[in-house]
Amino acid sequence: MHRTHTCGELRLEDLNKTVTLAGWVQRVRNKGGLVWVDLRDRYGITQLIFEEGEVAAPLLKEAGSLGREFVVQAEGTVIERTAKNDRIPTGDIEIRVNGLKVLNKAKVPPFIIEDDTDGGEDLRMKYRYLDLRRNVIREKLHLRHKMMQETRKYMDAKNFMEVETPVLIKSTPEGARDFVVPSRIHSGEFYALPQSPQTFKQLLMVSGFDRYFQIVKCFRDEDLRADRQPEFTQIDCEMSFVEQEDILEIFEGMIRHLFREVKGVELEEVPRMTYADAMRLYGNDKPDVRFGMPFFELTDLAQGKGFNVFDNAELVVGICATGAAGYTRKQIDALTDWVKRPQIGARGLVYVKCNEDGTFKSSVDKFYTQEDLKAWADKAGAAAGDLILVLSGELNATRKQLSELRLKMGEDLGLRDRFTYKPLWVLDFPLLEWDEETARFHAMHHPFTSPKKEDIPLLDADPGKVRANAYDLVINGVEIGGGSIRIHDKATQQLMFRHLGFTEAEAQSQFGFLMEAFEYGAPPHGGIAFGFDRLCAIFGGSDSIRDYIAFPKNNAGRDVMINSPSPVSESQLEELSIAIREKKEL
Amino acid sequence: MHRTHTCGELRLEDLNKTVTLAGWVQRVRNKGGLVWVDLRDRYGITQLIFEEGEVAAPLLKEAGSLGREFVVQAEGTVIERTAKNDRIPTGDIEIRVNGLKVLNKAKVPPFIIEDDTDGGEDLRMKYRYLDLRRNVIREKLHLRHKMMQETRKYMDAKNFMEVETPVLIKSTPEGARDFVVPSRIHSGEFYALPQSPQTFKQLLMVSGFDRYFQIVKCFRDEDLRADRQPEFTQIDCEMSFVEQEDILEIFEGMIRHLFREVKGVELEEVPRMTYADAMRLYGNDKPDVRFGMPFFELTDLAQGKGFNVFDNAELVVGICATGAAGYTRKQIDALTDWVKRPQIGARGLVYVKCNEDGTFKSSVDKFYTQEDLKAWADKAGAAAGDLILVLSGELNATRKQLSELRLKMGEDLGLRDRFTYKPLWVLDFPLLEWDEETARFHAMHHPFTSPKKEDIPLLDADPGKVRANAYDLVINGVEIGGGSIRIHDKATQQLMFRHLGFTEAEAQSQFGFLMEAFEYGAPPHGGIAFGFDRLCAIFGGSDSIRDYIAFPKNNAGRDVMINSPSPVSESQLEELSIAIREKKEL
Repeated sequence: MHRTHTCGELRLEDLNKTVTLAGWVQRVRNKGGLVWVDLRDRYGITQLIFEEGEVAAPLLKEAGSLGREFVVQAEGTVIERTAKNDRIPTGDIEIRVNGLKVLNKAKVPPFIIEDDTDGGEDLRMKYRYLDLRRNVIREKLHLRHKMMQETRKYMDAKNFMEVETPVLIKSTPEGARDFVVPSRIHSGEFYALPQSPQTFKQLLMVSGFDRYFQIVKCFRDEDLRADRQPEFTQIDCEMSFVEQEDILEIFEGMIRHLFREVKGVELEEVPRMTYADAMRLYGNDKPDVRFGMPFFELTDLAQGKGFNVFDNAELVVGICATGAAGYTRKQIDALTDWVKRPQIGARGLVYVKCNEDGTFKSSVDKFYTQEDLKAWADKAGAAAGDLILVLSGELNATRKQLSELRLKMGEDLGLRDRFTYKPLWVLDFPLLEWDEETARFHAMHHPFTSPKKEDIPLLDADPGKVRANAYDLVINGVEIGGGSIRIHDKATQQLMFRHLGFTEAEAQSQFGFLMEAFEYGAPPHGGIAFGFDRLCAIFGGSDSIRDYIAFPKNNAGRDVMINSPSPVSESQLEELSIAIREKKEL
Repeated sequence: MHRTHTCGELRLEDLNKTVTLAGWVQRVRNKGGLVWVDLRDRYGITQLIFEEGEVAAPLLKEAGSLGREFVVQAEGTVIERTAKNDRIPTGDIEIRVNGLKVLNKAKVPPFIIEDDTDGGEDLRMKYRYLDLRRNVIREKLHLRHKMMQETRKYMDAKNFMEVETPVLIKSTPEGARDFVVPSRIHSGEFYALPQSPQTFKQLLMVSGFDRYFQIVKCFRDEDLRADRQPEFTQIDCEMSFVEQEDILEIFEGMIRHLFREVKGVELEEVPRMTYADAMRLYGNDKPDVRFGMPFFELTDLAQGKGFNVFDNAELVVGICATGAAGYTRKQIDALTDWVKRPQIGARGLVYVKCNEDGTFKSSVDKFYTQEDLKAWADKAGAAAGDLILVLSGELNATRKQLSELRLKMGEDLGLRDRFTYKPLWVLDFPLLEWDEETARFHAMHHPFTSPKKEDIPLLDADPGKVRANAYDLVINGVEIGGGSIRIHDKATQQLMFRHLGFTEAEAQSQFGFLMEAFEYGAPPHGGIAFGFDRLCAIFGGSDSIRDYIAFPKNNAGRDVMINSPSPVSESQLEELSIAIREKKEL
């Protein structure tokens, strides 16, 4: 071992011990006859001292000339500091060094290795190994480590078996795009990387494994949005002989366990809301319930008073911003501009200020009397001093717009503290959703989700109305996990594939093995999967998942550190029986 | 929940409880007025009883007509059995059923779901989900689960951070073949799947992570041998500021922990042997030390006595099979045929029987006197009743042949009990090995392994003599883990690449990022990786890893259950900018 102690462990009780430390030079202060060096490792920082008279002149000189990020080994004696530093645990002591060895030199890093760095995102990603030296980043990965260990402890204690499912599987055209892997041995054939271990975990239930989990890499070859990665990690779980209630209970327990063990936070019972209510009250299937500000519908009250915009709207709907009646004209204009941006797409914004004197001031005073506005305020539960904001138009679009406005108002009013945690179960998702582009219904969750028994008759009559035994866990407006009770019999699974537009041959070639498995005694089962990267980010109070991934890819799916993807040799392609196509004109 | 209890938990103290069980029908015994059903789940088997007079006639009839592997839910009362079964933990009780529900029917399985099945390997793999229902297989995967949890517990307690490294990385032509993944966004470019996270874990050391581990999938597109899989799992570890001794200590601790917690076995201290000794004494770099039978060299003693075969041999070497002098002529002829098979390739076998009367009987009595043979026996440490077996020829080939013969003799003499565990560290591996085919040296371990400092001058003069700071952990003759102290400075790494025949440009394009990282303050570091599938197989007392993998691929790299690899659509290939080449004539 190149050290006797880490840079984080020496204290006053170690005084006079002879120790050897090794680490990185964080900082050198050279006062000529006196040199201090801050030596850093993962565990902390310890101060080294070199004093004229106490140490040989060459050693003093060498210490003074150490560069940032040099890797050194220092031998010396633990002494008490004269000027103590109570901001670090080792701040009471320092090491009087009598032997110093440079284990490795370091070029000047391209950015400063401190919590606040001068390195931009691109530079930090190219030198990710230096970025990872920063405490703020390493702590995020340490949080991730703790989350993994605690997840496994909980699952193991609940009798879940961790089973590794294959990474080289089979391409299925359904849903997002697969990454494929050409087979050398079977030329012209391909493996695919899993978007999730869905079918395998269901097969494990058919096998009687009863309770399965895995923390597993999944892959999606999608056009990357800001916070997506082509490879991501899931906590993947499945249980047999369960109903929805059992799953909610077990995994509410898991989230509670993680908050307790990793954050020291004792969660309240997780509230539940149907998808229909979430859409009606928050315009969003993953509402942020750290704050209220629910929607109230004004369609009936607002129509028939001569205001064309409302009269022609499918929905008139508002929110009440508590205490925001003081918003200035300028602020409200800014809000109006904000909702009219193409990203939001509203046509305008109506406001009603609830004045302290009981009167109302609105942007539609021309059309509505004080009594009309009083009725709105009553509907909104608004009190003096509140600000009512109203949008109107086509139902789904308007809800979506108002949801964005609600989140913005929550942000502006300081109601979205990132260290307040409000989980929520959203239940009873629709089974199918209409896709305009392909003009057919798609599975909202995936084709293995079971419809609610009482809604099956609707499959033909009104497919969009069929509810699924599906649930999401949402924390602070972010979807953290989702799952469902699965179909476990061949007939229902075939029915689903038919409704999703699969021909019998397609269903057979892609999922024949699963339907055949259902014929050999499949138990009722269901499960859930959590986005682990995002769960870690939520726990860390971050919006971005990237810092919680040791070696992330950029928005173009590229690892700029190792420069991947990259071309491979012609002989390698030949061996794989594939060729590059000429690039098409775009 | 479809059950109140599992099929493994009810006991006499639960008498008279009303319970609901769910599981699979293992067996039905129908005596007309009396039907017993064995209901099975992952946790055990519980007997259901249906008795005429006690239950309604239709229920009795239904119970009698249940098929094997039907999934049923049964409600009833726990009663004491008249005929107890002490082979199962639930054998004192049974359930008098008053309600039965078939949750799912089952077709007759293609093979019997019992520990001893009539299903052949191919059939079991096609219906792997049924094969996994068998207790013997599920227990192997449960062992694997326990190994994973205990490995993590140990590593976490030792301050190792679990960090996930990327799966989509970059192809490197060195060593075994990479699986590649075409990038859709960057047409003509490819990711590769990692053969190991080697460079990433070294970068984590440069990042100051100090102690890293991961249980991780790795990929190798090799022509598959009997017991290889294209995807396999490694326990991958790396540490900073360590020397070889530190790594041996930590990971001897890990193996000891696993044996203690998973098997209840307290291991002795793990002995150590140099590579040179292993080759000299066992002809093998992974000797099975459950038994002795070391080699003894007879070249000096055996040459110059007129026996041409020995006189012309580079090496004459033997083993002593204790107590095997009773082998018949027929048995020895069979051994001779065995070593002459092309797989072994020896030209013949010389034997010396040490008779009880102190005389010797050998196949070379013509050339050697009793004194000569006595001298051999002394060298062999042979006593009366022992059998000496001698091979000769070119040094390396002869050692290899005798190693095979030693293992066979160990097997035949019952010295290789699969529930006896004898781990061994093999140290001081050569850095390089000569490859006849490419007529150059290859890295024996990988190009990042550090040479022993004192051997560096030999790199030019006699590269094959340079020893590496590399070590393997061997258990019962199986290589379980291997690692090394790494190179951590750019100059040495460049030197290594040069000696491995890389041009500067090749080294730069493939590993430039790593060498650049070494310039920013890389600590001394080293690590090890364990083959997790094989470790599980050793713990389970099996020779084959396949049963320890939930969904293995066959020898042709094919998953016959899901039928993968398989063709993908032309439009998918077009999107990926690749095309299938015409098959070449072979």
